[in-house]
This record gives sequence, structure tokens and C-alpha cells, in this order.
Amino acid sequence: MSAPFSFRLIATDGAARAGEMMTTHGLVGTPAFMPVGTQAAVKGVHHDDVRAAGVELLLANTYHLMLRPSAKRVAALGGLHAFMRWPGPILTDSGGFQVMSLAPLRKITEEGVTFRSHIDGAMVELTPERAVEVQILLDADIAMQLDECVRLPAAQSDIERAMKLSLRWAERCKRAFEGAAPGRALFGIVQGGDDAKLRAESVRALVDIGFHGYAIGGLAVGETQSVMLETVAATAAELPAAQPRYLMGVGTPDDLLEAIARGVDMFDCVLPTRNGRHGLAFTRFGAINIRNARHASDPRPLDPESRCPAARDFSRAYLHHLFRSGEALGGMLLSVVNLYYYQDLMAGARAAIAAGRFAHYAAEIKEQWTAKRDVEQN
Amino acid sequence: MSAPFSFRLIATDGAARAGEMMTTHGLVGTPAFMPVGTQAAVKGVHHDDVRAAGVELLLANTYHLMLRPSAKRVAALGGLHAFMRWPGPILTDSGGFQVMSLAPLRKITEEGVTFRSHIDGAMVELTPERAVEVQILLDADIAMQLDECVRLPAAQSDIERAMKLSLRWAERCKRAFEGAAPGRALFGIVQGGDDAKLRAESVRALVDIGFHGYAIGGLAVGETQSVMLETVAATAAELPAAQPRYLMGVGTPDDLLEAIARGVDMFDCVLPTRNGRHGLAFTRFGAINIRNARHASDPRPLDPESRCPAARDFSRAYLHHLFRSGEALGGMLLSVVNLYYYQDLMAGARAAIAAGRFAHYAAEIKEQWTAKRDVEQN
Repeated sequence: MSAPFSFRLIATDGAARAGEMMTTHGLVGTPAFMPVGTQAAVKGVHHDDVRAAGVELLLANTYHLMLRPSAKRVAALGGLHAFMRWPGPILTDSGGFQVMSLAPLRKITEEGVTFRSHIDGAMVELTPERAVEVQILLDADIAMQLDECVRLPAAQSDIERAMKLSLRWAERCKRAFEGAAPGRALFGIVQGGDDAKLRAESVRALVDIGFHGYAIGGLAVGETQSVMLETVAATAAELPAAQPRYLMGVGTPDDLLEAIARGVDMFDCVLPTRNGRHGLAFTRFGAINIRNARHASDPRPLDPESRCPAARDFSRAYLHHLFRSGEALGGMLLSVVNLYYYQDLMAGARAAIAAGRFAHYAAEIKEQWTAKRDVEQN
Repeated sequence: MSAPFSFRLIATDGAARAGEMMTTHGLVGTPAFMPVGTQAAVKGVHHDDVRAAGVELLLANTYHLMLRPSAKRVAALGGLHAFMRWPGPILTDSGGFQVMSLAPLRKITEEGVTFRSHIDGAMVELTPERAVEVQILLDADIAMQLDECVRLPAAQSDIERAMKLSLRWAERCKRAFEGAAPGRALFGIVQGGDDAKLRAESVRALVDIGFHGYAIGGLAVGETQSVMLETVAATAAELPAAQPRYLMGVGTPDDLLEAIARGVDMFDCVLPTRNGRHGLAFTRFGAINIRNARHASDPRPLDPESRCPAARDFSRAYLHHLFRSGEALGGMLLSVVNLYYYQDLMAGARAAIAAGRFAHYAAEIKEQWTAKRDVEQN
């Protein structure tokens, strides 16, 4: 439980990497997908099911938790692991992204960002130093620097300004973090929009400051998948091999396979649970919209060979009925189905990279998504 | 799995009874509490947790299921047990009560009740024969007669008219059921409002027709607890000892203890899950409103000695946070906490009756509800 943060590369296969992160709360195999536990809970899923799905590393949102129940209260209750009873490693974001997307009023200055809480309307200041302090109070195994993320498309000048501000904040975060959380990790965040030159500049400056890992931020914010993947490829190529790389807020199973092929080690996204709540199941046979009328009388499970009990045990007809009837159990079950699917996709990727057959693995997976759909009318 | 329905009285203690029902899908110890699986799902609770709580017998609602997904579809998918994957016994109500409370338009005649579906606006007819047919299609282990339930207070003439109509429907249900569902049980429903004479008349006529069990209907519909309990006592005293007695739609833990003391064997109610979703936990220390601000920093679990993991493992502060944050997990966890509490209350009652100390058991339980609250500020 007290090992300091470290990362070990186990195998590479083209640009794809399999590795292992040691954190103060345990090991994490990479490529890793983190479900999002925004408010110290993965929406609609019991912790036991999150664990059973194979999740090792969980993400929690600093923005939400600092506003409610507050970092101080979480700290007084023993930190996030004790508070929510998640014994494994936790990564917290810096709060910056949610400030930009959720706070009704916000002002960015050199000092930091001031915003109005969406909960009680109070004005709150989030500086790089405060973002680090809050994440340490939350007891994150991996903390993120405060950054400014620009929605794409954006003017080059805006992208560059935000990237440079993020670098100055990165330096202040590093200073605030040093010595304050022994054994814990702080990640820098590469910005620069869809501009490869700005991204490379951001990478160089961050590496000069020196972080335990590097995130690729400012993507999945409105650009096409091909723009995202080009940027990921160009950025990953610049990043040091010895540290983990985390693509923030991504994505679909296809995004994950493509980004792994380009050298990404870590992901987080609300898709498995959000789509699950809306009736979309990720399966070996591709995405299945269980609300569709063609499932109403279908006695087949989502996937008889799944490791997930809910995918194996319940008929599509029953799941369809739950959604049509507005029963919360439907969303609960599909969220679990999707968490298993994402974790199994990552476990398969790790094994394939170790075996030097990742390209083949990705191709097989994608073929199943499309081929089976035609035959079985999923 | 193919044993015909039977009931065996194991012990009596005053008017309280401990028994055992054998059904086509297994044994049920009584006194028994049935959670409500209205639409073939207990709201917000995984089946595994329902089972782990100790639930043996589940209730499902004919009204909802006949409208969606339809009795025919459930039958085509193998019946309710296969459809929802609940291997244990299931009791279905007749649909009558929901028609009265949910259908926007309804007309009662001698023949049956015609109503407008709240789902698609179609006009639907529910006769005693159809109610039995639907419940057989659903594959209920225990089916209920169609009855008319009058909301209290009501005019004596209304109560009497509904009681007599219910008796004629009881006879038609019995005829429709006989030979149609071997091994399954059909229960008659005693009506008669809060009038002991009408209740006694209803009992005598039902016993003449002959049922596998007898429900006390038309209570928990607006009357006070003392009126309800008086009526229960008077009615139970008239009912044959050899058949199970089911008090429909009741109730709070206190209602259950009081009704058991008056000779009731079975209960159903939405309270454990509905209250759970709204932040009210039933515990040894009484009901705890977890939304209350005094729980915000409380590291104690709801009950460290509970058999329920959620009651034992999570702090009140965390549960409070989930409710304040609108996280569905809060309602999911408290629903499970409450299902365990109700089942443990019944298990305790069965043991106490067998040991001839039920009055003492009920007094102890009630003393804890109030005594601990003062000391520990639950």
C-alpha cells in the first residue's frame, strides 16, 4: 500500500504499449480504462460490480467533490478511498474541465479561474495551487495539473494562449505538489488543440518541468475522430516512452483501439454508464440499442459467452421490457454490461500487445462488430 | 419444483403463527414479507440483492404486466420466472387494485371492469375469468381473485355492494382456476371495509367457495392504523387456521409486528424500496432519514451489526452525500438495506413465534427503535 508511484513498460507492439503502473493503492495494468465516479460514485453501479468488471483504477471529479461534500470533509472522513470505500487506486482530475463546461459564470486570469458554484451560487476560486491542495485532501493516487481546455474548432491564437497558460499553471502545480504527497503521482496535461507544432511545444515544456505521467487534453471536445487520432499520434510520438500517457475523456470502443494503436496507455469516459442508462449495450457483436422493437420477443441474452452475468443471464426481451417500462434496473444492468465490455476490451488489448498481435486483435474485434450484426440482426 | 401448493402451521403463539408454504417454485417461511416487483423488477434492486436479503416470495403486478409486455409475451418467453429470472415463488395480484388506482377511466359492471390503459390509451376489459387467465399465463405460484376495493372512509352501502360483487367474482375466479393450473394456488380476498359484520360475512362466503389462502383486502387505503388493526384482528379470528392469511399492501415495520400478533402470515408493500429511494432507512435503531444534515460528517455505518453489507460498510456521511448529490446509488443502497431489514424482521418473528416469545420479541424491537434514537441521535 505504500509503494511510490512507478510505471513499467512490459511490451510494445508497433506504437501500442502494455505496461503496469504501481500506485499507493495497488497495481494497474495498461492500457487501462477508468470509469468515471464523478461524485464519488459510478452512476447507477454498485462498487462490487465495478470491481467485478475488472476495474483497477477509478476517476473522480475534483470540481464536483470540492463543491460537495467538500475536500475538507472528504479528508476528515479519511480521504476518498475510505469515504466511498474504493480500496483501489483513484485518479482525480483538476477540476478545470468541469469549471469550463458546468459552472454558470467563470473568469480565467493568470492566477487561476473564478467561477460560480452550480450548487449554491457561491463564488469559488480554483488556482493551480488550490487544485493540487484539493486533490491531496481527496487523497488521489494520481493528481492532474490545472489546465485550460479550449473547445474545438478554435482560433489558433486562442489555442496557443490556453496552451501557454496551461504550461505556466503546470509549473505552479509541480511546485505545489513536490514533497506534499509522497509516493503519489502528478500528471501534466498536453494542450495545443489540433495543431501538431503547438502540441510538440507543449510536450517539450512539460517534460522539462517533469511529471510522473502525461495526459493528452483538449481532445474529444468537438473535433472529428480522424483529427483526434492524428493529434494523438503526433503527440504520443513526442512523449517520453518511460511515462504513462493518458487520453482524457475518450471514448468509444473504436476510439480506444485506435488510440492504443497510437501509443496511449490510459482512458476515461462516461460512455459505458451513460450509454448503458440510455439503453445502448456494448457487446462483441457491436453496439445494441435494446430499446429497439426487434428485441421485444428475443429470448437470447446479449452475449451467452460474456463474463458479465447480466449480459449472459437476462434475455434481450427482458432488458427491452425494463427500458420500455422505465425501470431503473435496465440502466443499472446495461451499465454493468458496458463496464465489463470495456474492461475485457482492455484486457484483450494488454494480452494482444504482449503477444505482438495487437493489430490483428483490433481487426478481429472490429470485424465482429460489423459481421455479426448483419447475420444476427443485433 | 412440482410439489402442489400446501401450507403447514409450525407453531402458534397467542394469535401469531409461524408456518411454511410449499409452492411449485419452493418453500416460503411465514410470516413472510414480499417485496413488490411491479413490472417484473423490484425498483432499483438487482435480483441477486433481493435474494441475498432473504426474500423467498416475490409479488408482481398483473395490471402492469398484462399491459406491458403483455401476458401472452411473458408466456411465450417461458412465464414470469424465466422472463425475469426469478427462480423462486411468485405471487401475482389480480390487477383489480391497480385498475382502481391507476387507470384514468374505468367502469365496473357485474361482468368485470373496463378501463383505459395508462400506457397507450386502449380500452381493456378485465373480468374474473380474464384475471385468472392472465395470472396463469404469467405462471404465478399464487394467484389472486379479482375484487373491488373501496377507498376508506366509504358509505356502508358502497362497502357492502363491493364486498358482495367481490364474492360473486370470487366464485367465477374459482371456477376459471379449477383444473387450469395444477399445483398452483388461488387466494380469495376478504372485503367489507372497517365493518366487522361485513368482513365476517365475506369470510364465511369465501370459505364456502374454498380457496388455498385468504387475503385481507381493502385495508391500508386511508384508514388509521388502529382501525386497520381492529379489522385485521376481527377478520383473522374468523379465518380458518389451516390456510395462510395475507394482509395486502401493508406496511411499516410496526404494522407488520402488530398484524403478525393478530394472526397474519403474509405481507407485501412498496415501502422498503420507495422509502429507500427517498432516503429513509429502516434500521434496528428506527427509521433514519439519511438526507438530514446531521449525517453529513458521521463516519458511522447505519448499523455495524447488520447482515446487510450496505448497512455495515458505508458511512452515513457517504450515504448522505449520495442523496444530496442526486446519485442513484444512494437509493439503490438504501433499498437493499430496507429489504434486508424487512426480511430479518420476519425471520426474527418466525423464530420468536416458534420459541413462544413473540410478544417479547416485538416489544424488544420497538424499544430499540425509540430508546437508541434518543441516545445516539439517529
